[in-house]
Amino acid sequence: MTTESFVVPFSEGSADQKSLLGGKGANLAEMTRIGLPVPPGFIVTTDACRRYMAEGGSPEGLFDQVDEALADLEAQVGRKLGDPESPLLLSVRSGAVFSMPGMMDTVLNLGAMPETAPGLAAMGDEWFAQDAARRFLEMFGKVVLGVDGELFDDNVEQANEAAGGASERDLTVEQLAEVVAKHRQAIAAAGKELPEDPRDQLRLGIEAVFRSWDGDRAKAYRRIEGIPDDLGTAVNVQMMVFGNLGDRSATGVAFTRDPATGENVHYGDFLIGAQGEDVVAGTRAVEPLSALGDSFPNAQEELEETLNTLEQHYRDMCDVEFTIENDKLWMLQTRIGKRSAAAALRMAVEMVDEGLIDEVEALKRVTTKQLEAMLHPRFGPDAPEPITTGLAASPGAAVGKVVLTSKEAKERGEAGESVVLVRPETSPEDLEGMVASAGMLTARGGLVSHAAVVARGLGKPAVCGANELKIDAKAGTVTVNGTVINADDVISIDGTTGQVVIGEVELEIPEDDPNVAKLLIYADKQRTLHVWANADTPEDARRALEAGAEGIGLCRTEHQFLGDRLPLIRQMILSKTEEEELAALEPLEAQQKEDFEGVLEVMDGKTVVIRLLDPPLHEFLPDPLELRLKEASEGLDADEQKLLEAAEFHHEHNPMLGVRGIRLGILRPNVYAAQVRAIIGAAVARKQAGGDPRPEIMLPLTAPSQELKWGIDLIHATAKEVIDESGVDVHYPTATMIETPRAALRAKELAPHVDAFSFGTNDLTQLPFGFSRDDVEASYIPAALEQELLPVDPFRSLDPAGVGRLVDMAVTEGREAKPDLVPGICGEHGGDPDSIHLCHKVGMNHVSCSASRIEVARLAAAHAAMEGSGPASTA
Amino acid sequence: MTTESFVVPFSEGSADQKSLLGGKGANLAEMTRIGLPVPPGFIVTTDACRRYMAEGGSPEGLFDQVDEALADLEAQVGRKLGDPESPLLLSVRSGAVFSMPGMMDTVLNLGAMPETAPGLAAMGDEWFAQDAARRFLEMFGKVVLGVDGELFDDNVEQANEAAGGASERDLTVEQLAEVVAKHRQAIAAAGKELPEDPRDQLRLGIEAVFRSWDGDRAKAYRRIEGIPDDLGTAVNVQMMVFGNLGDRSATGVAFTRDPATGENVHYGDFLIGAQGEDVVAGTRAVEPLSALGDSFPNAQEELEETLNTLEQHYRDMCDVEFTIENDKLWMLQTRIGKRSAAAALRMAVEMVDEGLIDEVEALKRVTTKQLEAMLHPRFGPDAPEPITTGLAASPGAAVGKVVLTSKEAKERGEAGESVVLVRPETSPEDLEGMVASAGMLTARGGLVSHAAVVARGLGKPAVCGANELKIDAKAGTVTVNGTVINADDVISIDGTTGQVVIGEVELEIPEDDPNVAKLLIYADKQRTLHVWANADTPEDARRALEAGAEGIGLCRTEHQFLGDRLPLIRQMILSKTEEEELAALEPLEAQQKEDFEGVLEVMDGKTVVIRLLDPPLHEFLPDPLELRLKEASEGLDADEQKLLEAAEFHHEHNPMLGVRGIRLGILRPNVYAAQVRAIIGAAVARKQAGGDPRPEIMLPLTAPSQELKWGIDLIHATAKEVIDESGVDVHYPTATMIETPRAALRAKELAPHVDAFSFGTNDLTQLPFGFSRDDVEASYIPAALEQELLPVDPFRSLDPAGVGRLVDMAVTEGREAKPDLVPGICGEHGGDPDSIHLCHKVGMNHVSCSASRIEVARLAAAHAAMEGSGPASTA
Repeated sequence: MTTESFVVPFSEGSADQKSLLGGKGANLAEMTRIGLPVPPGFIVTTDACRRYMAEGGSPEGLFDQVDEALADLEAQVGRKLGDPESPLLLSVRSGAVFSMPGMMDTVLNLGAMPETAPGLAAMGDEWFAQDAARRFLEMFGKVVLGVDGELFDDNVEQANEAAGGASERDLTVEQLAEVVAKHRQAIAAAGKELPEDPRDQLRLGIEAVFRSWDGDRAKAYRRIEGIPDDLGTAVNVQMMVFGNLGDRSATGVAFTRDPATGENVHYGDFLIGAQGEDVVAGTRAVEPLSALGDSFPNAQEELEETLNTLEQHYRDMCDVEFTIENDKLWMLQTRIGKRSAAAALRMAVEMVDEGLIDEVEALKRVTTKQLEAMLHPRFGPDAPEPITTGLAASPGAAVGKVVLTSKEAKERGEAGESVVLVRPETSPEDLEGMVASAGMLTARGGLVSHAAVVARGLGKPAVCGANELKIDAKAGTVTVNGTVINADDVISIDGTTGQVVIGEVELEIPEDDPNVAKLLIYADKQRTLHVWANADTPEDARRALEAGAEGIGLCRTEHQFLGDRLPLIRQMILSKTEEEELAALEPLEAQQKEDFEGVLEVMDGKTVVIRLLDPPLHEFLPDPLELRLKEASEGLDADEQKLLEAAEFHHEHNPMLGVRGIRLGILRPNVYAAQVRAIIGAAVARKQAGGDPRPEIMLPLTAPSQELKWGIDLIHATAKEVIDESGVDVHYPTATMIETPRAALRAKELAPHVDAFSFGTNDLTQLPFGFSRDDVEASYIPAALEQELLPVDPFRSLDPAGVGRLVDMAVTEGREAKPDLVPGICGEHGGDPDSIHLCHKVGMNHVSCSASRIEVARLAAAHAAMEGSGPASTA
Repeated sequence: MTTESFVVPFSEGSADQKSLLGGKGANLAEMTRIGLPVPPGFIVTTDACRRYMAEGGSPEGLFDQVDEALADLEAQVGRKLGDPESPLLLSVRSGAVFSMPGMMDTVLNLGAMPETAPGLAAMGDEWFAQDAARRFLEMFGKVVLGVDGELFDDNVEQANEAAGGASERDLTVEQLAEVVAKHRQAIAAAGKELPEDPRDQLRLGIEAVFRSWDGDRAKAYRRIEGIPDDLGTAVNVQMMVFGNLGDRSATGVAFTRDPATGENVHYGDFLIGAQGEDVVAGTRAVEPLSALGDSFPNAQEELEETLNTLEQHYRDMCDVEFTIENDKLWMLQTRIGKRSAAAALRMAVEMVDEGLIDEVEALKRVTTKQLEAMLHPRFGPDAPEPITTGLAASPGAAVGKVVLTSKEAKERGEAGESVVLVRPETSPEDLEGMVASAGMLTARGGLVSHAAVVARGLGKPAVCGANELKIDAKAGTVTVNGTVINADDVISIDGTTGQVVIGEVELEIPEDDPNVAKLLIYADKQRTLHVWANADTPEDARRALEAGAEGIGLCRTEHQFLGDRLPLIRQMILSKTEEEELAALEPLEAQQKEDFEGVLEVMDGKTVVIRLLDPPLHEFLPDPLELRLKEASEGLDADEQKLLEAAEFHHEHNPMLGVRGIRLGILRPNVYAAQVRAIIGAAVARKQAGGDPRPEIMLPLTAPSQELKWGIDLIHATAKEVIDESGVDVHYPTATMIETPRAALRAKELAPHVDAFSFGTNDLTQLPFGFSRDDVEASYIPAALEQELLPVDPFRSLDPAGVGRLVDMAVTEGREAKPDLVPGICGEHGGDPDSIHLCHKVGMNHVSCSASRIEVARLAAAHAAMEGSGPASTA
């Protein structure tokens, strides 16, 4: 049996070995490979970590390999670990496959011991040598030995106080040496033993990094991010270079493009005379990268070149950590850089223009979440610093006055004021207040807290879990890190970033971002799924066309019965004889004909799927409770009395499960006939005006095929009358909604009657689950998501296992019975990226969604089509 | 090519050739074969009819074969068709595979022409000869030539009037001859030609019978009875024998046992000097069969023997038509006799005792409908003649005062009076009146009319479509054939038979019919499906045990929260803190423990499946409308105010789709924990008392498997506490309801968590169809059934295509994941025979139904098990 190899020198790895070397290690190796200035070192592989976890200890042979690699490293750099004259210091850093920022452990300055102080002093000065020892003891003590870090903080603080300085940088060498001595005492007092041999320290350091993979915080992070627990981490052992050797040294971070705007300029900042941790700590003010040349002209030039090389090499924006040690540039890390939504979009499109990537790659680089953020109001570039940042719980930005109770939010919001509801957390009682608010801000709760779920459902911005808020509802104040916000003060929240700002922020809506339009053109070339719109009026249709809709997948007719026309439909409902009913329908028919003409005109040459009346009749009647209360107090007049009787007669225990859809048509066939006459009549008029009307008539909520056949027969018989009468032929395909599980289960018998299926996935979710959105959205669903009893809110994303199975069965079996069947979706899910992937997978023709979701749907459809070639997750 | 054979003489056929010879022909052949006195004849086969329909005319060679068979017949009987001296008269009767009484055509006395009058007169007398000619002309004219029958009726009536007699029997020979002449004139005047050659008449007669297969009435009948349209009919051509040759002749019908009671005595009646059609017309009073010996001792003896022979031969009760011609007995028809429910049961059981049939055969002989009729109240043997008979729309009998409006029925019914609602027809507005009535009687509407459907749903007796009723609601009267019934008069209706009787009929409930018990013992031996009961209390359980329940498949716990305990559960609902909630639950837990002990004691040694709380909380709260009205009028006290707030908070738009079942448990876990403690505590107490308690704990309305796992974990954790505390081990399997389509679709993931599935088919019907029973039972469902848009009321019988598919998937996939899974059904469908067949077919372990349905379920389960060996339809 040959010994397994657990150690890889930087010079022998490459960027495509991330799962073995970890992300950081693979990129260090890659930079080494392409000749960039990386301090030498080696990687202890994730295999070694996995063996450590499985066996409860380091695998046999590991440390022999480490010793060997260390010897090579020492030979290469001409320094030795523990050597008094020419000491090598090491950084021991974790490097998992997926970045887990701040979750795992690191030991720096390993090798800075009393024996090596002279050599270190020779590199810099005495102070530097003591400071390196201090830093090492603090990190090794905390991370490897488990000593309480406060003990070290106390030592430093006491020294600062005694010296009358502000920080350890003001201590003298002697004072610093005193701190180092006290640190050693603290370790001993805690009952821990500091191994004096740096090779032992290295071994313990590597194992400490292994162990940090299974730390509680790391595990929690992985659970949230969906990172598997069995990947393990690599450990990067690297020669330390020092940005803190004085003013010819510095450390910094840089991006190959601006990560906020996406502009093609280098971006970053640096700190003279500091180690990387000092930059992260944020205690000293950094300088912008553009000023680097002033102090380090050569290093600056080399960095510019390096950044260009990296971007060309990785064909993407990279971020780096660098250190300048005595004017010499060293690269400590690189990776694909995180970016804002706007930057992601701009970079993707510009890199195509620059020839760096192709359109497919550009599409992979922009998630639907990022595109969506671009479509929502957001803070403008001049927004002040946030006072705090919470979780980005529901996208969009809002400005409004702080109110602290839902009752007040309801009253003032309904009165037209823009208010932001600020609560410790929300519960079902807050629903009405949330509906009336411009946005929500909570101090507690995560991304699936009640507030977050409800806000997303309502399409309102929300920042949740902003735990720096202290809310005192009685006093009417919100305190954030000492700053007091009073009720009625104006605040601004951005639910896309989680930022909270005091005062009014100017919001930005990039309506005509040319990069959005360009990216969507790329998307249109890739996608095979058509994107249609749900639109009820000519105005809706126009907006949908502008957003790129290729047709109307759902034109609801019920809204056309509201407003001025409500008295007409009430008259129809109250009619006692068929003559009365027909008389009441006549003006409604004429008005609907006009409505349909308008929509068909806007969508000339494109399919418009018009759904016959769907909701139960009581939706057009007043609330019986209110009438009863009025009856009890002041009495009702004769008309009101009739309305009350009708409202009580048509009252339903479960309106969602009552007389609606085609069932209503069966009980009131004249209503459907009038609607069909209006549709065909409108198409005739459009044809006579030289247009190309393409109406499709759709029946709602069918279950058995006999119902559907009844409806289709009625449509054809009625349409024939209108066509014969006018002498103008109209082509009108027919469709049925697939909303009931029964319909999905018997698609085989439904398909032969129609040209198209349209999945109504609100019903097709609530019926399989047995819960309605209205009744569980604010109560059961948040609780179930929080307890992970539901994998996802099925009203936001189609439930693949249950609803998806029904949809798949219906498409497959429907096509078996009718090969040219046109299946699509017109529920709200039609605008949800994950649901669009599912629709693509089951082979639908189109998704139909509200106008505001069309852009996102176009991108998601492209991602779905590219899935075979491995697109970025669109979630 | 050999010519096909289209004609079969009686002497060459047998009873097993029904599809070729038709039912009547096959039995005539069989009687001939076993030596009974059948007038000779032959059968034109159904093949010939099918060819006639397919080709639009009689197949080649048919009439050559008919001529040949006729020649053989003439030779056999020594008479010839059309022979003046020794004429043969023929009957030409249809005979389909399935009996279609009165739907098809017949020509009798074919061959009675002027030329044959002398020969006929020689057989009887001149009057007989003329009468035969008259009868022939009337039938041939109407059936074959299509002459309006009223023309013939007018001729006879005019002659009667002229002669001053009451019927044609009072006419003289000359007067009758005059009628015959006028009949011939009427035919000619109608532009029709009467062929003078009786062979031509025979050909036309046979073709007329063929054509009658496709008559509108016949088609409608077949549609209702589910008889295929392509079977065709046979035609029986047979020598006429005459019961109307004078007082040595007679005709009658007889049954081998009493078809009303099942008693093993011959039964029937006869008419001296008459042809069969005279008996059917009912214009002359018949004599009972027991008197036949007085007039025809020899024929009577031969008939007795013949009836005995037939019953032994067919091993079933037969009915026959017979004719005595000059003291000679002839058998004209036999078939398996129709019988009342009581007779079917008694005969089946007694024939087993007599060794005539085996138990399996006896089970096939009794339908579940018949058994069900035996279990409902019915008219006793002394019930007076009905004043009218309508459709048997909903089984059971009722006695009550006539009320003519639903409003009055509601008021008086709710006040405790027994009323029968009498309406022209019913509509959804009548629902409350129907609920409050003892029974319903309508003048219009069929078996799927609103009244019929609703009555069956309510389990109330109903007679529908009694179209002799003239209802005058204003006058407060119901007139039936001249008899006036006033509002408030007492009437009795029997929905099992359709009978309506004036006055109070003594009702009969065969509680301890030993034949029922015997038949059910046969059934228990055959069935493989267990029959359990839905029972909530010890009393329910006791009744179920008596009816034969083998376990309790559903013990609901919600009823235990009503009555005295309502304040306790309200206190629980109103609790603001967990302490308050726990305090409120404590007494409820103690009381439930007692309840469960009671049920477990009754069902000692048998499984009792206890379902945790299922309904939404608002079911335990008052109606917010009522409280609001009270608030508006007199104001609310503090408690009422709290109740109002809670009622409005828990109010749901769609309670069926709200927070119920396990979703309630997830939001109020302490409630489920208290219930589990009560169940396990009760079992511990029963064990300590020496019993054998077998509780099974069931979770309602699960959808995703994570929910189910949560619930099962809670059950086990809670049960363990009680078991550990008591030191008494309790075995308790767990189960989940399968009520949501999502659960059925993901049975694979649910099954591993539980021991058993119980299908709740009310939800599992309303969710797939998207309609709730409450909301469509009185509106959409009756309309859809009437228009045949629903094949069956899916709340009565499991919808096989949709719901059945889900159930099948769930059982199959659940068993794949957990081979020893125990699937059963506990919805109302568990007592419906068709649904029980489905449950058997998909491989369930048990059906659980209300105590009153257990007997029917036992029989249906036996039928289902026997299905392989071809049982009678159980519908």
